[in-house]
Amino acid sequence: MKKYVIIVAGGTGTRMNNAVPKQFMELQKKPILMHTIEKFKDSIPDINIVVVLAKQLNEDWKKLCMKHNFSILHQLMDGGETRYHSVKNGLTLVPDACIVGIHDAARPLVSKETILKAFETAEKLGNASPAIPLNESIRFLKGKENCAVDRTQYSIIQTPQCFHSDLIRKAFLKAYKPEFTDDASVLEAFGEKINLIEGNRENIKITTQHDLIIAEALMR
Amino acid sequence: MKKYVIIVAGGTGTRMNNAVPKQFMELQKKPILMHTIEKFKDSIPDINIVVVLAKQLNEDWKKLCMKHNFSILHQLMDGGETRYHSVKNGLTLVPDACIVGIHDAARPLVSKETILKAFETAEKLGNASPAIPLNESIRFLKGKENCAVDRTQYSIIQTPQCFHSDLIRKAFLKAYKPEFTDDASVLEAFGEKINLIEGNRENIKITTQHDLIIAEALMR
Repeated sequence: MKKYVIIVAGGTGTRMNNAVPKQFMELQKKPILMHTIEKFKDSIPDINIVVVLAKQLNEDWKKLCMKHNFSILHQLMDGGETRYHSVKNGLTLVPDACIVGIHDAARPLVSKETILKAFETAEKLGNASPAIPLNESIRFLKGKENCAVDRTQYSIIQTPQCFHSDLIRKAFLKAYKPEFTDDASVLEAFGEKINLIEGNRENIKITTQHDLIIAEALMR
Repeated sequence: MKKYVIIVAGGTGTRMNNAVPKQFMELQKKPILMHTIEKFKDSIPDINIVVVLAKQLNEDWKKLCMKHNFSILHQLMDGGETRYHSVKNGLTLVPDACIVGIHDAARPLVSKETILKAFETAEKLGNASPAIPLNESIRFLKGKENCAVDRTQYSIIQTPQCFHSDLIRKAFLKAYKPEFTDDASVLEAFGEKINLIEGNRENIKITTQHDLIIAEALMR
């Protein structure tokens, strides 16, 4: 089946308190978003790439592509009010009867193994999301109190989350809920079971300066 | 009240598949355990330091202290079968009517603020554990299935976990349960409510080579 990836870079950088939005910040002297696009192109050479970007950043992105001689073909789509709405916009460019991965632009350290496994499993089973074990002790918060929970019963979820395009497009027709922190949750709310595959621990989401330091170290 | 810290370094390095146990691995050319001891001494100069170490590593540790001219006073105690048993051994060196912090040797990046806040809060309220928000999407695993959960209802728990010594010593007289992944859980099983304070995100536990790379970057 034909393969698409929607790389979600809808933010404008407010969370990092940074003049440069996080997807444009440099890792090894190249914007994070370029690393992420390259990772998918290297893993699946004939993949169709959609990048969802806040409209006001389009010109900056084009300038960055020229500056870095970045020539991997991709189609731009405007971002929405939230991540959910950005993905929904991206899905309008994806036809039926293909496999679509939805990936955070801020995760440039996804491995080729994770990408291939997610697409392959989604093709077989309808959907697949990468997950890694939770290594830290956690507590459940209830009001002002809290209690220990068994961490082995939880997994950390990453991207790319991959889907049959018909299925995920139908799921995104449902009304938006603020609980949707990822795309598998949208499909789950539509009544489907979510399949987990093994992610790679380096596949962190860069949201703070702390994460950027970590990502630089992991790239070396 | 008098202050003690039990630094738990009971392991022998099997998890890292490393000839050198993780608490002896070097960060900026000095064993992790030395960084951790220094952090407590710098934060609370008159603190009493107990280091719980596997018996067979005592000689290696003494050699390392000589090699690095490491002169911060500390008392050694033999490790036990599990982390729980190591802490229990350490508590035999802690008198009643003081505040005791229990800290993972593999967390050298704890901040002075976290240490002081944990000890102060425990002195007021009986116990305190550092916690940070969980930033990643997680799923709850039930058998072969899984479902989305609201990550804002969970906190990641760190150390030092601090306690009135009378209280935690009594709690550790209870029978051991494998669910005890930290010391607050032991106190909770004894019937006490756990108080959370704000931890620092850099305060990671170094358990893999991946973590060691991250810690090196965060130290710089």
